[in-house]
Amino acid sequence: MLIQNLTLIGVGLIGGSLARALKQAEQCGHIIGCGRNVENLQTAVRLGVIDAYETELDQAVANADVVVVATPLGAMDATLQAIAPALKTSAIVTDVGSAKQSVAQAAYRHLSQHLQNMVPAHPIAGAEQSGVLAAKVDLFQQRRVIITPLAETSDAAKHTITRMWQLTGAEVIDLPIDYHDQVLAATSHLPHMLAYALVDLLASMETGEDIFRFAAGGFKDFTRIASSDPTMWHDICVANRNALVVMLKRFQQHLAKLTTDIEQQHDGEFKALFQRAKTARDQFNLP
Amino acid sequence: MLIQNLTLIGVGLIGGSLARALKQAEQCGHIIGCGRNVENLQTAVRLGVIDAYETELDQAVANADVVVVATPLGAMDATLQAIAPALKTSAIVTDVGSAKQSVAQAAYRHLSQHLQNMVPAHPIAGAEQSGVLAAKVDLFQQRRVIITPLAETSDAAKHTITRMWQLTGAEVIDLPIDYHDQVLAATSHLPHMLAYALVDLLASMETGEDIFRFAAGGFKDFTRIASSDPTMWHDICVANRNALVVMLKRFQQHLAKLTTDIEQQHDGEFKALFQRAKTARDQFNLP
Repeated sequence: MLIQNLTLIGVGLIGGSLARALKQAEQCGHIIGCGRNVENLQTAVRLGVIDAYETELDQAVANADVVVVATPLGAMDATLQAIAPALKTSAIVTDVGSAKQSVAQAAYRHLSQHLQNMVPAHPIAGAEQSGVLAAKVDLFQQRRVIITPLAETSDAAKHTITRMWQLTGAEVIDLPIDYHDQVLAATSHLPHMLAYALVDLLASMETGEDIFRFAAGGFKDFTRIASSDPTMWHDICVANRNALVVMLKRFQQHLAKLTTDIEQQHDGEFKALFQRAKTARDQFNLP
Repeated sequence: MLIQNLTLIGVGLIGGSLARALKQAEQCGHIIGCGRNVENLQTAVRLGVIDAYETELDQAVANADVVVVATPLGAMDATLQAIAPALKTSAIVTDVGSAKQSVAQAAYRHLSQHLQNMVPAHPIAGAEQSGVLAAKVDLFQQRRVIITPLAETSDAAKHTITRMWQLTGAEVIDLPIDYHDQVLAATSHLPHMLAYALVDLLASMETGEDIFRFAAGGFKDFTRIASSDPTMWHDICVANRNALVVMLKRFQQHLAKLTTDIEQQHDGEFKALFQRAKTARDQFNLP
């Protein structure tokens, strides 16, 4: 058995799906859930996602071999601070946050005695739904999980977390922290900003509700991520502010050039851009 | 039978799907296809999408009761010019273009003797695929078709085209030409520009191909429309240039404000934007 006692802090879509997958793999002895919402924790026990729950962080982690912090990023700092004194020396701590520099900083602040067992990680999966009711045993099948070790992280701790995620069906990849945050700002955080900004702009227009009546399938696909949890995305913007702002500004420059090309009838220019984009997207075989 | 002789100019996804739906409804006697690519026309005959084909526009429309122009927008002007002398006086002409002001202008240029029988229309359906092989009998089921009549369009002609589209399972709505072009610039043309610009920017980054490896489901949905046909979208940008540039500039302002809010730590501001966008999108019940 890979993990005897696992404590899951934050029993939502990601944490709940991880717990389900580990239980199915029979590689986890006992899972304690912890969170602020007792009703949610009771639901998770009833669904069989976790075996038991605690509402106090120090009690929840006291016996843990692995602690998975699956809270929103905004709660990361306070969570690491609260668990630090209660951790066993051997306990491995990992997380699932969508930005890693801020998690590393919180670890250096609060887990300075524990850095060899700290393994920041990010499963690239999710959905517009959230909550334990949305948790699925196969959420991570054929998805990627990025591990961004600290300089201090031991090979043994990294190996355990790598194995844990492989058990869910995911491919696990190591990346440097800064590189992770830049890549995710580009492929995930920026697109969410564009979708949110577009829907908000259209909803604010003088045409009002009418405008959505004429939206086709492309618009629905394009804006699906604008139904994501605003609090989670607030936290991501705060946690990855610098890399995201860099990408937002690069995109604005790119869009300004495209706008100028359309306005000034540089028709060959924007047609070439469309062709490059189609080629890139088709080439990478995104379905 | 609603239409005895129908001529379809441009036998691709939209035209082919319309032909299939009309045949299934048994409300169309004979369908002649016309286009530049003989092989494509032969395929369409073999698939039973059309009954016969012509390669010369004047011969193709000579006997038509209804002419559907389903070419890319860039071919609209030349097509209307070519068919004008050959049309029967009673022939109704309609199109499927994604922008309507430019079609109306072409009609005023070339069909001035025929305006009472000109019915500009736009089925809001489509896909990243194109060509007659992608044509589906149910493409327009539960979709909307917008008709933008000219001041001169007769009620009888409008009624025939409305019935034609209703037979495909679509809901047919009348809108003024300018309003159509503004709404589509916002809900369709602008999102395509954002998706194209995003994919092109990412493909040009120093991280190169690597970046697409870490794209999650949200990115795939978001950028699906960047796989659309570059020529078609070039034509749409040219045809709806003014309305599109207005929307691009409005979006740039909105995005600049969001960027400033993130950069300057106005965290309540951008969280409120995310919340408004989520509420709007959820409220309009887009799946």
